[in-house]
Amino acid sequence: MLQFQVVNVSIEPKDTIIISHSANKELFAEARFNIVFKQKEERIGHIVKVDGLLEENQIGISSWFMKKLGVRKGSEVILVPQSKSVSNSYSLIKQKMTQPGYSYGKADIDEIINEITREILTPIESSVFVTSMHYQNWSVNEIEYLTRAMANSGEKINWDNGIIFDKHSLGGVPGNKVSLLIVPIIAAAGLMIPKTSSRAITSPSGTADTMEALGADIEFTIDEIVEIVHKTKGLIAWTGGLNMVPADERIIRDVQFPLGLDPEPLMIASVLSKKVAMGVKFLVLDIPTGIGTKVTNMETGRRLAHKFAELGQALGIRIESGITYGSSPVGHAIGPSLEAKEALSALIDPLHASDSLIGKTTSLAGILLEMSGKALRGTGQDFAYDILTSGKAYRKFQEILEAQNGNPNIKPEDIEVGTEIYDYLAPQNGYIVELNNKVLARASRAAGAPMDKRAGIHFLRKKDSIKRGEVIFRVYASNEKRLDAAVAELVKGHPVTIEGMLLARE
Amino acid sequence: MLQFQVVNVSIEPKDTIIISHSANKELFAEARFNIVFKQKEERIGHIVKVDGLLEENQIGISSWFMKKLGVRKGSEVILVPQSKSVSNSYSLIKQKMTQPGYSYGKADIDEIINEITREILTPIESSVFVTSMHYQNWSVNEIEYLTRAMANSGEKINWDNGIIFDKHSLGGVPGNKVSLLIVPIIAAAGLMIPKTSSRAITSPSGTADTMEALGADIEFTIDEIVEIVHKTKGLIAWTGGLNMVPADERIIRDVQFPLGLDPEPLMIASVLSKKVAMGVKFLVLDIPTGIGTKVTNMETGRRLAHKFAELGQALGIRIESGITYGSSPVGHAIGPSLEAKEALSALIDPLHASDSLIGKTTSLAGILLEMSGKALRGTGQDFAYDILTSGKAYRKFQEILEAQNGNPNIKPEDIEVGTEIYDYLAPQNGYIVELNNKVLARASRAAGAPMDKRAGIHFLRKKDSIKRGEVIFRVYASNEKRLDAAVAELVKGHPVTIEGMLLARE
Repeated sequence: MLQFQVVNVSIEPKDTIIISHSANKELFAEARFNIVFKQKEERIGHIVKVDGLLEENQIGISSWFMKKLGVRKGSEVILVPQSKSVSNSYSLIKQKMTQPGYSYGKADIDEIINEITREILTPIESSVFVTSMHYQNWSVNEIEYLTRAMANSGEKINWDNGIIFDKHSLGGVPGNKVSLLIVPIIAAAGLMIPKTSSRAITSPSGTADTMEALGADIEFTIDEIVEIVHKTKGLIAWTGGLNMVPADERIIRDVQFPLGLDPEPLMIASVLSKKVAMGVKFLVLDIPTGIGTKVTNMETGRRLAHKFAELGQALGIRIESGITYGSSPVGHAIGPSLEAKEALSALIDPLHASDSLIGKTTSLAGILLEMSGKALRGTGQDFAYDILTSGKAYRKFQEILEAQNGNPNIKPEDIEVGTEIYDYLAPQNGYIVELNNKVLARASRAAGAPMDKRAGIHFLRKKDSIKRGEVIFRVYASNEKRLDAAVAELVKGHPVTIEGMLLARE
Repeated sequence: MLQFQVVNVSIEPKDTIIISHSANKELFAEARFNIVFKQKEERIGHIVKVDGLLEENQIGISSWFMKKLGVRKGSEVILVPQSKSVSNSYSLIKQKMTQPGYSYGKADIDEIINEITREILTPIESSVFVTSMHYQNWSVNEIEYLTRAMANSGEKINWDNGIIFDKHSLGGVPGNKVSLLIVPIIAAAGLMIPKTSSRAITSPSGTADTMEALGADIEFTIDEIVEIVHKTKGLIAWTGGLNMVPADERIIRDVQFPLGLDPEPLMIASVLSKKVAMGVKFLVLDIPTGIGTKVTNMETGRRLAHKFAELGQALGIRIESGITYGSSPVGHAIGPSLEAKEALSALIDPLHASDSLIGKTTSLAGILLEMSGKALRGTGQDFAYDILTSGKAYRKFQEILEAQNGNPNIKPEDIEVGTEIYDYLAPQNGYIVELNNKVLARASRAAGAPMDKRAGIHFLRKKDSIKRGEVIFRVYASNEKRLDAAVAELVKGHPVTIEGMLLARE
């Protein structure tokens, strides 16, 4: 039993304490303690052992947890080792682990997600949950429970019977700025499409990052989102600060991102829980398929499309998927500012925009227009193309920019990019046959994207016949160190393959 | 990019930094950073975000890590977010996860264990490794690599051709003090048996805890262990401080203990790596089997025994197993001091000791004596019994006690136990048919064992006919609060079943 004096510190997560590790060397095997104050015993979520910041007899506790315990600065508390998990739901996770064929019930999943949201499950416990998903069978029912529990973990938007449309991409393709064109097209057709997204986690730019590079605000309250959408029909915002689906944010932050794990049941629930919380009724899902994306072949793409449709039915969302070519970047630009320039140019002058950008934009927008009944089956893409080329989409985008406190008259040339540049030259004559998504994404991130909005890659030539020494693409960065890091990634990988090029020399 | 001023603190694990979380709210999605000082870039193992202890522009770094980076107190360092794992071996863990049928090679396992030992793999990464083992097939080769890599992670003992015997129990049975009798029996027969063990992690007392309750030292350097064993042949010590198999200590501390996971390949490697590091050549393995133990049925017991024998062969250790009755506590006492009293009494006066203690002791010791050639097949148990009842084992134990700085003339009545007591009474007449290991272990731990040596449970009657109101066992604790906690565990479970007793009333 160890007695400590309370010091107030702020720690994340909240029910964590910090203690001096030299205070309790003997107890190293005890990973968990209860904290006791005036006969009241509370379980502690995490213990961080740090020396040199606290005296041996001091304990650091957050205000939140001090309030829960009823202690004050200077109070004496006692730590009592415990051997059980703090969590109730961890035993359910172990149950599915040890009993082959065990299916989670609704109450099981609710408890697990509740404890993830409240940060009662520790990161290593959550990691058991996520790792196990890689090996387990999850039924449609179980994924539905997971989706609903995650959607219920935070705020939801109520649209008073307004019908909400949305577009979502499973990701993995750099340069995928199509949402910046699809949102104004759909909104110009009179449909409500509040496109919310997270910032880029592993990619060089997310839709919200690109929108921010245009000078628009992307952080709004739920009331503001509803107000903007009722006015403009369209919106491109970041949901990070809104406490929508906090369970998803926690799992991503504590487990999925650091471990690079994205098991299918969780991936599906993560996407759909956000749609449930946003009140989406019609969704077009972009499933980029090809080398370097998450979905490497058509068969997996089709299977996923059917699974999403099945879950959509259970959740009251109509979902249609477009399996798209994902082996090369979309359009010519990668990175927030470069993508913002390209998207804005395409809205202003779609006839001179890249074919891959316009084709993908209008085909996905077309599916939504057909689902809505605004276009007959088979005519959606043409309708989307008309909205785009007529200038209606651009005018709608200006409205949206203005509603989001941006300058509606911003021009592509107003958007600044990095001053340090590096030109990647064709090593020989020939036809460019392959662009490597992963190498290009890594190089863009090494250059500073997405946090440095001005960093990224711009293609002067893509699939094209090229001569030795001509520039294929240009890397932009804000300083030399970052530029060097990006070049190092390019040297390590093969960003571009030219037909007939030697791929290796052994 | 974030610039910080270095503050020197001591943190566990070593390549961890602590930062103020308000300093980098924007980067919450970045779980990992590189730290840069004078063009030198190092990866950081763990980041702890704490507020209130450091200024926003300060970073807390351990001396070890400061030295590695070449920074001083007050130096300015830069944090650069990275999206890759710090670890090289985590990709191997993911490889076995995603490629069905993938077998780890020796170099794979060496890298993983090396990074666990150096605390480069984070606890959540190690948790993926351990969780996956529950679902994966591990070949004998893979377990052998794991065992050798773990054994190579720290110090080993070299006996100069001395042949080392050992006894190990897979555990799960409270009151299992047989090692305190087996060691002097085997040593009295002239064989070297340096019995080292960890302290109790989840049980009410480990062999080392019980030895310590006898007033003996249990912490020695490797040189001291070798010296004592060359003198007395026997020893009972704790290996915790010796840096033997640190990989095992890390996995237990960071993952297995907090998660309560013990997948078979790791369980086997954990046991055998310690034997390899100790230089053991002959091992008798106690596999307690029954209700409440790890091995719930004979079939699993037999399969495990064969697997251990097979691995022993690969590792150059002869292993024979005794599958023992594990559904009830061994002997009458649970908890360090109570077990120490019982073991000492049994050595002094074996004819009046409990049958379960003497039977288990002599049968396991007999197997070792037969393996050594000191006894013919079928005569080992009798030989062990002779050594015990002749007083040779007790005299040898006195020698060992003295060599370990204890009082060789200590008597059972010299060992103090808790002053707060609670008598558990028979609720009705009848025959005691079942004692619940788990409830008894939980109650003993709630009473304070093993950290409070004087806490535990002592049986006045075990399998016996009993009358309503007679005392079955007595709980000992050092204070009322602990005694209450123990009683609460007894009330929650069924510690004792009496034939004909109502088990539930619905």
